[in-house]
Order: sequence, then C-alpha cells, then structure tokens
Amino acid sequence: MFYHVKELQFNARVSKPDPAFASMLLEQFGGPNGELAAAMQYFTQAFAMRQPHPDKYDMLMDIATEEFSHLEIVGATIQMLLGPINGELKNAAEEAEIMQLLDGKAKKEDFIHSAMMNPQFFVLSGGGPTVTNSQGVPWSGSYVNANGDPTVDLRSNIAAESRAKIVYEYLMQFTTDPYVKETLSFLMTREVAHFQMFEAALETIQPNFPPGVLQGDPRFSNNYFNLSNGADARGPWNEGKSTGLGETWQYIEDPIKHVIESNGMADHQPQGTDRTMKSVEKKDKEMSKERSQHVKKAVPSGENQWCEYPQK
Amino acid sequence: MFYHVKELQFNARVSKPDPAFASMLLEQFGGPNGELAAAMQYFTQAFAMRQPHPDKYDMLMDIATEEFSHLEIVGATIQMLLGPINGELKNAAEEAEIMQLLDGKAKKEDFIHSAMMNPQFFVLSGGGPTVTNSQGVPWSGSYVNANGDPTVDLRSNIAAESRAKIVYEYLMQFTTDPYVKETLSFLMTREVAHFQMFEAALETIQPNFPPGVLQGDPRFSNNYFNLSNGADARGPWNEGKSTGLGETWQYIEDPIKHVIESNGMADHQPQGTDRTMKSVEKKDKEMSKERSQHVKKAVPSGENQWCEYPQK
Amino acid sequence: MFYHVKELQFNARVSKPDPAFASMLLEQFGGPNGELAAAMQYFTQAFAMRQPHPDKYDMLMDIATEEFSHLEIVGATIQMLLGPINGELKNAAEEAEIMQLLDGKAKKEDFIHSAMMNPQFFVLSGGGPTVTNSQGVPWSGSYVNANGDPTVDLRSNIAAESRAKIVYEYLMQFTTDPYVKETLSFLMTREVAHFQMFEAALETIQPNFPPGVLQGDPRFSNNYFNLSNGADARGPWNEGKSTGLGETWQYIEDPIKHVIESNGMADHQPQGTDRTMKSVEKKDKEMSKERSQHVKKAVPSGENQWCEYPQK
Amino acid sequence: MFYHVKELQFNARVSKPDPAFASMLLEQFGGPNGELAAAMQYFTQAFAMRQPHPDKYDMLMDIATEEFSHLEIVGATIQMLLGPINGELKNAAEEAEIMQLLDGKAKKEDFIHSAMMNPQFFVLSGGGPTVTNSQGVPWSGSYVNANGDPTVDLRSNIAAESRAKIVYEYLMQFTTDPYVKETLSFLMTREVAHFQMFEAALETIQPNFPPGVLQGDPRFSNNYFNLSNGADARGPWNEGKSTGLGETWQYIEDPIKHVIESNGMADHQPQGTDRTMKSVEKKDKEMSKERSQHVKKAVPSGENQWCEYPQK
Amino acid sequence: MFYHVKELQFNARVSKPDPAFASMLLEQFGGPNGELAAAMQYFTQAFAMRQPHPDKYDMLMDIATEEFSHLEIVGATIQMLLGPINGELKNAAEEAEIMQLLDGKAKKEDFIHSAMMNPQFFVLSGGGPTVTNSQGVPWSGSYVNANGDPTVDLRSNIAAESRAKIVYEYLMQFTTDPYVKETLSFLMTREVAHFQMFEAALETIQPNFPPGVLQGDPRFSNNYFNLSNGADARGPWNEGKSTGLGETWQYIEDPIKHVIESNGMADHQPQGTDRTMKSVEKKDKEMSKERSQHVKKAVPSGENQWCEYPQK
Amino acid sequence: MFYHVKELQFNARVSKPDPAFASMLLEQFGGPNGELAAAMQYFTQAFAMRQPHPDKYDMLMDIATEEFSHLEIVGATIQMLLGPINGELKNAAEEAEIMQLLDGKAKKEDFIHSAMMNPQFFVLSGGGPTVTNSQGVPWSGSYVNANGDPTVDLRSNIAAESRAKIVYEYLMQFTTDPYVKETLSFLMTREVAHFQMFEAALETIQPNFPPGVLQGDPRFSNNYFNLSNGADARGPWNEGKSTGLGETWQYIEDPIKHVIESNGMADHQPQGTDRTMKSVEKKDKEMSKERSQHVKKAVPSGENQWCEYPQK
Repeated sequence: MFYHVKELQFNARVSKPDPAFASMLLEQFGGPNGELAAAMQYFTQAFAMRQPHPDKYDMLMDIATEEFSHLEIVGATIQMLLGPINGELKNAAEEAEIMQLLDGKAKKEDFIHSAMMNPQFFVLSGGGPTVTNSQGVPWSGSYVNANGDPTVDLRSNIAAESRAKIVYEYLMQFTTDPYVKETLSFLMTREVAHFQMFEAALETIQPNFPPGVLQGDPRFSNNYFNLSNGADARGPWNEGKSTGLGETWQYIEDPIKHVIESNGMADHQPQGTDRTMKSVEKKDKEMSKERSQHVKKAVPSGENQWCEYPQK
Repeated sequence: MFYHVKELQFNARVSKPDPAFASMLLEQFGGPNGELAAAMQYFTQAFAMRQPHPDKYDMLMDIATEEFSHLEIVGATIQMLLGPINGELKNAAEEAEIMQLLDGKAKKEDFIHSAMMNPQFFVLSGGGPTVTNSQGVPWSGSYVNANGDPTVDLRSNIAAESRAKIVYEYLMQFTTDPYVKETLSFLMTREVAHFQMFEAALETIQPNFPPGVLQGDPRFSNNYFNLSNGADARGPWNEGKSTGLGETWQYIEDPIKHVIESNGMADHQPQGTDRTMKSVEKKDKEMSKERSQHVKKAVPSGENQWCEYPQK
Repeated sequence: MFYHVKELQFNARVSKPDPAFASMLLEQFGGPNGELAAAMQYFTQAFAMRQPHPDKYDMLMDIATEEFSHLEIVGATIQMLLGPINGELKNAAEEAEIMQLLDGKAKKEDFIHSAMMNPQFFVLSGGGPTVTNSQGVPWSGSYVNANGDPTVDLRSNIAAESRAKIVYEYLMQFTTDPYVKETLSFLMTREVAHFQMFEAALETIQPNFPPGVLQGDPRFSNNYFNLSNGADARGPWNEGKSTGLGETWQYIEDPIKHVIESNGMADHQPQGTDRTMKSVEKKDKEMSKERSQHVKKAVPSGENQWCEYPQK
Repeated sequence: MFYHVKELQFNARVSKPDPAFASMLLEQFGGPNGELAAAMQYFTQAFAMRQPHPDKYDMLMDIATEEFSHLEIVGATIQMLLGPINGELKNAAEEAEIMQLLDGKAKKEDFIHSAMMNPQFFVLSGGGPTVTNSQGVPWSGSYVNANGDPTVDLRSNIAAESRAKIVYEYLMQFTTDPYVKETLSFLMTREVAHFQMFEAALETIQPNFPPGVLQGDPRFSNNYFNLSNGADARGPWNEGKSTGLGETWQYIEDPIKHVIESNGMADHQPQGTDRTMKSVEKKDKEMSKERSQHVKKAVPSGENQWCEYPQK
Repeated sequence: MFYHVKELQFNARVSKPDPAFASMLLEQFGGPNGELAAAMQYFTQAFAMRQPHPDKYDMLMDIATEEFSHLEIVGATIQMLLGPINGELKNAAEEAEIMQLLDGKAKKEDFIHSAMMNPQFFVLSGGGPTVTNSQGVPWSGSYVNANGDPTVDLRSNIAAESRAKIVYEYLMQFTTDPYVKETLSFLMTREVAHFQMFEAALETIQPNFPPGVLQGDPRFSNNYFNLSNGADARGPWNEGKSTGLGETWQYIEDPIKHVIESNGMADHQPQGTDRTMKSVEKKDKEMSKERSQHVKKAVPSGENQWCEYPQK
Repeated sequence: MFYHVKELQFNARVSKPDPAFASMLLEQFGGPNGELAAAMQYFTQAFAMRQPHPDKYDMLMDIATEEFSHLEIVGATIQMLLGPINGELKNAAEEAEIMQLLDGKAKKEDFIHSAMMNPQFFVLSGGGPTVTNSQGVPWSGSYVNANGDPTVDLRSNIAAESRAKIVYEYLMQFTTDPYVKETLSFLMTREVAHFQMFEAALETIQPNFPPGVLQGDPRFSNNYFNLSNGADARGPWNEGKSTGLGETWQYIEDPIKHVIESNGMADHQPQGTDRTMKSVEKKDKEMSKERSQHVKKAVPSGENQWCEYPQK
C-alpha cells in the first residue's frame, strides 16, 4: 500500500520559467531511462521476489518508492519551468494573446520560442507534463526489464542506474539555474547510490555467474570470433583469461573458414578450459535443485495470501 | 513524496494458481483502463492543478495514491495466480521438466495449457507480471489524458472510472475463485466510489459547460446532421432541447444539400437559440479574464518553490 | 456503406501558408483527441450497438460520419497551410533551392524556419499531412475506447468531446488567420454539440449508474482514503452525500492504521448507506436478467445478416 | 464530406458465430494490410494530389471511400461472428455463467475455447471489434505511406493491394462458412480490381521511372554486388539488361575487393550504360522544371480555398 | 553468417558538422523507409524463400546485406555530422559550457541551435545516432512486410525502393555539403538499381497476376464504384480495358442505388469479362496444385537442416 | 561494410516441425532481449566509439556482427519449425484444406492447434518469421540503449547479455528436440562469452565508477531511505561500506520525518564519507578535462572521413 505526503523528497525550486529545458527534462519523466521506468522496473521485479527473497523484496520496494518520489520531483520541476503557460492559455478570448507576444516584446518572444520545442505543452497538455520522452514519444511498458531471476534483474538495474546517471549528467549542462542544477545533482547522485545498493545485493547471491542456473557449453564459452575485419584490436576481452569463468580466450582469426571446417561449430572441441560437458551437467543439476527448491519452498502451491496484518 | 507499507490495501488471496486468469487480469495491470493508467493519469493531472487548485490537487493525489495501491493488489494477485511457474523454471537442468508434465499428468497439463495463453510468463518474465495488457501489448504513456483544465480532466476521469469498472465486471465472470472474486469486487467498487468523487468535484466548478473557456459559435451548437441514412432514429439527442445549453435541436435531414446551399455552412444562420455572436463574445471575455486571473495569481512568474517544509 | 462528396462540410480556407501552424494542427488529425480518433471510436462502438440498440447505432454512425468529414476539413486545412512545399520539393535538381532561400530572402526564410518544426513535412510526406500528432507520434488504435456497454461508451464519448473541444480552444490561440480561426471555431463548436447529444442519449438509459450491470459492494462504495497527507482539503467529494448512490462519505483519516486494523478491509463494515449485500445481490440479478435478455433477443444465435436491402 | 447509408456495400452474412475466426479476421480490420490502413493511405495521399492532380484525387477518394465501406463490412462480419458474447457478459450476476458452460456443455465449450484466442473480446471490448490486428497490436499511423509524389504513392498502393489480397487468400482457408467465404471473396477480388486501377493510373504519368524527379548516378545504377557468398544465382536481376533504364548489369563478383580498390566506389567508372553525368544532369533539370511548375501552377501561394460550392 | 569489414561500401565524408541535417538524416537510419527497414524486410522475406526459391533467396540476401552496409554508411554520416557533441558533453564540470556558447559566439550558437531540432542527441544518445526516424519515433518491426509469397513480397520491395528513393531525393535538397550530397546520390541511385532487380525477379515468375494463387470473382474484378461525387474524372482506371486481366471496366455511376438494387451485390452479374466462375475455379485449382507442390517438394516435412558445410 | 556467407555460424537443424515452439522462439528474433536487439545495440553504440575508442569499436563490431549471425540462426530455426505451413497455404483452392485436417487426422490437428498460438503465421506472414516478440508485439527501436559513454554502454551490454542468457535458459525447457536444444545451448553460451568480453572491456577503463564523468554529491551518495515499511531487511546494501565509493551507508529509518526536518534534504550534511564538495569538484574538473580531450583529439572538428581504403 502506498502513502503520499505533500512534501517532496527534495526541495525542488526554479529561479524562473524555462520551457525549453522543461521539454528536455521530460526525458527523465517519461523517457526510457527516466524515473517512471526505474520505479516501474523495481516495482514489477519485486512481485516475483516477494516470497522467495523477502530481503531483496524490501530493498526493491524501498528503491521503487524512492523512484516514484523522484518522478514527482521531476514532474514538479517541469511544471515550475513551464511557468505561466497554463494561465495564459486560459485567456482564450484575447485574440491570439500568446501569438501577439511575438511582435516586439523580446523577452516573452524568447519564452514562446523556446516553448515551441514541444508544441504539445501548448496544444495538448495545456502547460503541464506529458508521459513522454523529450521528443514526445509516449512511455512504454517495454522499457521495464523484469525476468524473474535476481542475478539477471539486479544486473538490469545496475545498467539502468548507469543510464539514468548519465542522462542527468547530460541534462545538467543545459541549465544555468542554480536551483534546478541542485535538484538534478541530488537526483543524479541518488542513481549512484542505488547502483551500489544493487551491486551489493548481487554479491550476496553466490554463485551469480553465469546469470540464471545453467552453466553453458564449455566448447563455446571462450571463443572470440574476429568478425569485423581490418584494424583488429586485442585486449583482455579476446586474449588471456576470461573474467567470470577464468578460461583462456580462443581467438578465431578467420571465422568463415573455421565455421565451414568445423561443420558449423558442431565438430568444434573445447580448448583452454577445465570445464567439461560432464562437469557442466553436474553443476547444472546441483544449481537447478538448489534454486528451484529455494523458490518452491517459499511459494505455496495451493491457497496463498500476499501478506499478514500487521506485516511483521 | 511516496511511502510504502507492506500491507496491501485489501487482503488479496487466491485459492489456487490459475495462470489463464492471471493472463486476463493483466488487462488491469498494464492495460489502457488498468490501475497504472488510472494512477498515472491522476498523478500527471495533479501537477498543473497544484498551485491554482490545491483542493483538487489533494483529491487527485489521494486517488492517484490509491490507484498505485490497487496496482500493487492486482500485481500481487497475478503473482499468486502464476503460482509455481517461477520455481519450476529454476529447475532448468531437468530435461524439459515442464514439457514432460504434458504427458499423462492431467492436472499439471491443464495448468501448463492455460499458461500457454501468455507465453511471456514462461519465456520472458519467468513467472511474474509484465507491464502489458492481456494480449501482451506494452502499457503506453498515450493512455494518460491530462489537458490542463479541470472541467476537461475531471470528465476524462469519470469516463476512465467507467471503463475500469466495466472491465472488472467482465473479469469477475472468468474466475470461480471466491478469494479472487472478493478482491475484484473491492477494486470494482472503488471505481464506483472514485466516479462519484470526480463528479462531485466537477460540480464545484461553475460554470463547467462547455468544458474550457470558450462558449462556441451559436450557429453550429444545435445542429444535428443526419449523415447516416436509412432507419433514422429520433430522440432527445436530435429533437427538443439540448442538455447543456438548452437550445432547440435543428435536424438537418439532407446534409449534403444543406451544406452546398449554405456555401459550406458559411451562410448558415443561428436558429432555435437565444445565444448570439455578441453574447458569446461577452461571455468568452468574462470567462477568459476570470479563469486566467485565477491561475496567474496562484502561479508565480519568477522564482517558484513546490512546497514548504512542513507542508501546512 | 460510405459515400463522399467533394464539398467539405465547412468551407475551409486559409489566408496564406503557415507550416508551423500546420504542424500544430496535426494534433487534431492524427493525435489522441483528434478527428480520426473520434471517428474511429464512434464507428467501432457502433458495431456492438447495431442490433440491440438501433437508435444509438443511428446516432453513433451520424456522428462518426461527421467526424470523418471533420478529419477531411482538418487535412485540407493542413494541406493549404503547407502551401508550396510540395511544388518546391519537385524542383529537385536546383542545388539546394530550398536551402538557398535561407540566405537573404527574409520572407522565405521564415517560411522554411517555421516548417522545420516538423522535418517530416519535408523529408517524408513531401508536403502533405501525416497520420501523426503534432510531435510526429503515429496514431494508435489504442486511442479508441469501445467497451460494449452504452453506459460506458457514451461516457467515454462525453470525455472525448471535452478533450477535443479544449484542444481546439488551445489551437485557436496560435493562429491569427481569420479563415483558419473560423474553421477551428466551427469544429470546436461541433464538439460542444456532440457532447450534448451523447449526454442526452445517456439519459435515455435508466438506470445508468453505476455504469454496466453490477452495483458494487456497499462496504467500499463510500469510503474516502486520505492517502495524500498534509494540506488536506474537504469538499463534496469526501463529505456529505455521494452524487450517484446518495450514500454518506466515510472519511478514513489514517488509512494505514485502518487497513491494518480491518485486516486489509476484510473486516470493514458498511456505514452511511442503506444498501446491503442482500439488496445489492437482488439488484444485480434483476439488472443482469434485464440487460442480457435485451441483447440476446436482438442478436440471433445462428445465421445472421447485417442489414436488409433496402434498409427500412 | 462523407455520407453513410446503412446498407453495406456487400450483403455480409454468417451461418453461425465463430469467435476464433473473428479473431483472425481482425487482421483485416486493424492490421497493417487491412481496410483501415488502405482507406487511410489513399485518403491521406489524396490531400497533396487535390490541386495539382484532380483526376488522381478523384480516383483516390473513390477507392478510399470504398475501403472505408469495406472496413464496415469486415467489422460487421466480426461482430456477427462474435455472436452472443456481448449478451452473455451482461448476465454478470450469474456466478461465472460463462465459465460454468465449460463443464459438460460441449458445444458452448468449443465456443468459449475458441474465443480464448483473443481474451480482449471478453475483458475489454465486451464482444465487439477492437482496432487491432489478429494478435491485439493496435493499428498504427505508421502503416500509412504517403510521400507526396504520384509515381511513388501509386506504387505503394499497388504493393498494399497485393498484400491485402494475399491476406484475404490466406484467411479464406480458415473458415468453412459459405456466407463468410462469399464476403471474403468479394473483398479479395476488389483488391485485384484496385490493383489494376492504380497500375493504369501510374501508366498515365510519363516518365514514371525512376520514381520522383532525379535520374540517379550512371556509375551506380547497374551494379550488382554479390554480397551473399556461396550458391550464387544468376538471373535477369544481375545479368543482361536492366528493366527500367535498359542498362547492362555489372556483376561485382568480389565486392570487398572492388570497394577497397575503387576507393570506396569513389573511383568507380560507369560501364554498360549510355547515360552520362551530363545527360543525367540535363534530364534532372528538365524534369525538375516541368514537375515543379505543374504543381506550383495549381497551388496558390496566398489565399486558398479547398473547394467551391457546388463542386463542378 | 555475416562478416564485416571496416571499409564502408561508399567513401562517406563530411565537410563540416551539421547536426540539423543529422537529425533529418535519421529518417533513413531508423525511419519507415530507411535502410534498417529495407535490410530487415529482405532478410525476413528470405527465410520463407530459402528452400523453395534458392535463386530469389540469393538475391534477397545480396540486397539485404547491401542495405545493412548502407545503414552503416548512413550511421557513419550522421556521426560525422554530429561532430564534436560527444566530446563537448564529456566536459561536464564546466558550468553549462554548451549553454554558455549561446552568448556571443555566433558560430557555435548556430551549431547548438540547429542541434536543438533533436534534443535526444544531447540528453539521450550523447552525440550519436538513435534508432528512430527524424522525429524521434523508434523504429518498429511493423515496417517490415513479409508475406510468404514472392509475387507479393517482390511488389512490396518495388514500392519500398520507390519510397526510399524519394526520401533521398528530398533529403538531398537540405544539404549543401558536396561530400554528403555525393553519398546521398550513391544511396539514392542504389535504390533505383534494386528497384529494377526486384522487377526483373518478379517477371521470372509467371503468372504473377493476381498476386498469390486465387484468381478472384469475375463479378467483382472490373467494377469501378464512383463513390466520391462531383468533379468526377475518367481515365484508363475506370474506362477501357483493365491492365492485368484485360477486362472492360464497368463504371457504377450511382453506387448506393446499385448496391440496394443488387441486394448488396449478391445479385450482380459479371459483365465485360470472359472469365466465368467455372474458368476461375479451374485456374484456382491448377495454380494451387502447382504452387503448393513446388513448395512442398522443397521443404522436408520431418528433419531439416538449414545448410550444408560448405554451401555449394 | 557487411558480407554474408550462406553457411550459418552454427549448424541449425530441427527433428520435426513444431509451430508452438516457433512462436515462443520469436521472443529471441524480434523480442526486447533478442538477437536483433543485441545486434542493433552494439552496432549503434559503435558509431560514437569509432574515432575516440578504436579498440572498443572493433570489439563492438565483432560482437554486433555475431549477433546478426545469431539472428539468422534463430530465424532459420523458426522457419524450419514452421515446416509445411507455407506450402499448405499455397493450396488455396482446396476448400479449407487446412481446416479440414482438424476432423479426424489427429497428428495434423495437433500441428494446427499448436500453430494457433500465433495466428499471424497463417494470415500474415504465410509461414515465415515476423519481426515481433512471442506475443506479436513489433520490435521497437526503443529496445536499443546507446548513450555515448563506454562506462554506461558496456554496463547496458552486460545486463542485455544477462537477459538474453536467461531467456534462452527458459526457452530450452519448452522443447524436447535435441537439435533445437543444441542450437539454443550454443546461442545461450555465446551470451555468457559476450558478457565476459564486455566486463573485461569495462575494466580497461579506469576509473569506471561512477559511470560517466561527474562524481556525485557527497551528501546524497550513501543514504538509504527506508521507504517500504514493515518487515525491513538489512544487508550490505544498507549497512557497512558501499561497493563503489567505500562510504558508510546511512540508514534513514523514518524518511518522512527526516525530509521534513532537513528542509527537503537541503540542510542535510554529509556523513560517513571522506569525499567533500571540494574534492568532488576537483575530481569533476580533472575527469572532464581528461575525457573531453580524449574525444576531441580523436574527432576532427572540420572535414571528416569515416575510413581509409584499405583500412589499416
């Protein structure tokens, strides 16, 4: 159950209206890396984690709720940046009041001009935020990644926080309003905080690589296919040991030749690895048993109740 | 700022898993008339109402927050209806465990069969909700109507509540689980409650018709164009007095002829109305002045702060 | 069956091209509250109403057809506002003819500059309308609300007309062309007319509240949850009698406490209402019987023919 | 201006309800190759053609209007195929009436089972059509191709009619209802008729190849890059004369080598063609002049009126 | 299997950055007629053609691969046109560095100003291309037409190439950079080449009209319905012989009257054609047999392997 | 420039058709975590990395090209799983051939039945893949994350590989075909390989945390807001040291109280950290300088050429 207090989590202010920046800021209201996307991602992931992983559930709901609170901060800032548009539009009988401003009154002209970056502020939302990105594209449920496995979902979240952070970093360069900068700095820094929370939570699950349960075929886990020819680069991603499995990278210099000669990789043999088909199979079975039992024990197969009153 | 308690607003329970119904219920999670759509609509409308209409703002945030709480109830119910899917999928090493159930074990087969209505529960979300409607279409920001005018927004909300109500009414016919029915009945009834709240709020704004500020041209407000020929019906929508303006409906029997003869309506004269171009112009100016001043007085044109600490 | 005459329903004219306004006007061509959305909504609703409600069917098809005619007026106006773009683009061999205009020829420059608000007019549609809103977002079938119940659909239409009206009201403030204003005024006023038609039609259905058939649980229909704390407002939406059911609003001051103490509302008892579980059940059954029989009588269960020739 | 008569263009009937086929048939109601897509495509193209090409405008509006009439036929057939669903849903108080049918009443069970292909018929539209394709994806304005040039638009239409035709051909194989087959056969055949109309109209424009105005660089118009290696095929698309320009195809056996040696095609010289940079430039200028003057003469640069009353 | 070389198929260069044109050019990167749409269309069509039509498969894969190579050229050009944006954004600590440029440094101002056409270059992509059209609408899988029949797919491709050609023709008018023009001219000309390849391939299939297998009902294939009244035009699309079937067009002057009198076309008799229901039925059967056998022979019904190593 | 060989990277085979699994497998063809999404993400990111980070560019293009090759493998497998559908549909004249199979021929019935999971295979694509996910939702350009900073993009890729891996893990449980399992195992394992490549590449950039350039405000980087009340959990995400910055987590037990008392966090002071506003500012400036110079040096501000011939 959610609850709302009218105080914002951060004391958002603006020095003066700036509709052009309001338009850019929509990117964090209804854009793919914005606050609604973050809030809905953690909220949606939380359902499948509720019964088997109550600690992760608590963390996801803490952060999801904070992201909803950030969504409110972003919306409030956009609203204040739009300034008098809503009121001006109510003056509907004055013949093209808004348009007349364009003739001779320089300051207002700039205001209108900058607002034109997003015509929907005028003709659709009447001077309020829209659930879109900075180009007017409506928010989509497909922005949400929730795959029912904490070793995957937490990584999705680490990446999502990275993207949200960089978008705020970019946005801060397009305003000189110290109040707005302050708010953006708060929001950006919170992404840095959340990033570390998700990283720490991921570390509490062991093993967490590869993500999910299955280990992967030892014949194919350490090949590097040199598929972009010319100006080839070598680095720890295609030479030396691999990061997660500690296998030795096998660099396939001429992939077309290799694929044809290996009968489409079917005859390719594992190299540079200690893992075998057998060891993988054993590990797969162990992990399957452990992970499925963990979930099955926590989720009743018959009658189910979401929570007790009061929640302990 | 939002806050979350782990207790649901309603004590959601299920008697046993039913993934087919979980799939249908997605319509109210991520569908166009679902809880996310309602929550985001009232939340988004609230921004423009904050400063000029603090009472409407309070109501919108109360109801938006309740809708977020309903979204949680719907998600929790879907999760419980999906039952053991997440756990079964973790048993990944068992050769097609889930598929083998199809041979001979009737009860499980039904389970799987019904789950197949929505393959994404298996291959994408891993046994959790998706931010989509019952057919898998992702939620869209375009579901949200927020037009910056309370006489419009409140009507959008009355209609939205009507649609949400009927979808719950339909859904209730596809489950025999008494716990689930109980939850759906709660949710459906709340839409009835919200409907009346929005209706009452609309009545406090006078005049509220026509929506917005401008009155409309008296030449065109009471014509009925009979554009679908054959089996014509007459009723209070095209004879007698009109509901809002109290004008006498003018039935245009043969619209093509009338349009041509009136030079594309340009020569059409007002009939059956007391309103004149002059009276309309006067009313337009009065309303414009009143409504724009109301907003302008409340919204500062320079520095602005969203809220005080503590909020009074 | 549809038929077209080349005369527009309204004599649309423009004083001179204005591509910036053409771009804004797209909001009513392919936007969520535009003419295509209205036409398709009433047209789609009409199918389910055809056999059980022939009078509503007639009205919906009359208005749907008028909205298609309005769509044509809007498209024609956009086309005229785009003026010479299509012809200029045909002059393709002249080295950047359009671009060269930017150097020194002030009037043309303005033209081009304003057209840049919507680059698709140049590089995609070649100087004609696109089936998008003012930001280029393609029209979506999800804009259409049709839920198979006249007490819901007519309310969706009242809201849709309200939104369409306000968008025209906003648009009129961004043109000074008297011809264009005249056309927009006609279109805006027609929304006011349609609003009243739908309202009158809704009144002919009794009872029409709650929308649909089921009455709602008397325990939950008159509670107001005070979920947004601080600066709370009271008004007819949370005190006194409710508008539709005439119950007394029950204001739940501290919803978290109340939910926990009422075992997630499960132990909550009805208050401030004469309706009981029993009376509701009775009404539900009566309404179910009446409404289902009405439809079933009109819709053949075997062979079916849409219409007779000629239609009577 | 549109007009509607209640008679369908074709006498659509069904022998009995078949909701599974109703679901498939949605492909032609709200799918990318369906009747709404066709109607909106020709209607949208018509705007830019109105003043410079009144004969093409007439044809496009004739066919667009027919496609709207087909949309109505498809919708009517879907409605009849859905049969009693709308009425059954009104019987809302009967405890899971629809679900209970599943136990023991074989015929009804089949009905319900087949309806489950599209859950939205039950929980969203209440037994009526939706503006989606057969999978529930909402219709999109991006289905419409209108590029402001008849040599392009007419080709888009020929292709659109081809796709619409094949979809009807496929659909006809999934019904055994003779009435429905008859209707589908009518609709399919009309696509064949329209195909030929567009083809004939394209022929009246000379030259119509290449589409648009510019002729294309003679160095690049007759090369065939053999970019998919192994099992290469030769045919009139890469040997002999090209269809439109009558140039001799130049087969580039080893494109990587050729690109590198020709400095990224920059040093490639024309071969197998009589066209030269000079002849192309001349033709480009002639065509530009002719085509742009044709349009500019027809489209006034100042005041403009869409049509006269009455239209001649 | 794909392979990449770092050389572009065409030596793409720019004279200087031009972010406004970069924004327009996105239309051919992620727009409905752009290179990704073309590449994915031919690639997707190729799968169904692989076994029954290996020669068409080879052609489709040759051209699809070329379109992917063009996508790379377009992306590279956009990147170079965006110039220093990515680097400037990295200078994040300098207080509004980018914004400060707006004061007094004219040249940079223009740069920024023109970049503002697409705010996502700044706040989302950080100075790189986005998978959207020129208005920011994300690329959609619905742009791809692949219907499993070469007589349909090849026509879709001819139309697609026509649209791609005209968009390049339009784009060339908005740049004066000779390097960019050169690249666009190459890309535009390649569309002209591909058009002719698809046309030639279509000709190798006989008969190829009507598209697909079924011939169409002789009663409905040559009627022209005069559904847009006033200013009617006659031409080879409604008088004389039809292009594909060589039937005589039947002009239905008054379609409403005709439809009513013919009982919804049910009593309409074939005229102006030699085809009969019988001859059509015969042709349908022959074609069905021939076409289905051709495919069935090539596609194994049991075990299947996509290719041999090495491919012959 | 891309090049294609007809051999698949992996020798894909199927034992027999299975259209139900073909439908599920679409999730990896045109779904949000599928091969097209991966290929386009790395390909799009590569543009901005080309000049400043040639080694990362090489890696991204190697992997992007492999993902395109995987897209081909997935498409080929879907095509083989669809088996004879395309051929059956060509037998169009046989009265409902496909439907008749439903009566009495058990094996074929199963085939048809399972195919019905995705009606578009029959009525749209004619027995070939569609560019959609398993529910028919078209692929969207919004699936692609490319933000112009390697410390962000590589993290997006690590998460994308995790999701792709788990979807394959899930999919493998819904087929018993050993050939198909083998192919899926290859594809799943390659995601594990790519994950490690991206991880290794990220490590070569130092510092890589926080992602981007700016360090974040020391007042807000180590607070944990306990916003979901009841059943609170403690763990390394809200106690002890944070993972990236090594600060001590500050647990805010009662966030509402804290926010109000700290004047909306404006008066909140840093605790548990050595970082100061000053040290952050210094680091921000250093990093800004270093990172922007790195990029600016590599990207010419005037004339630019994408590559040399031959590429070194």
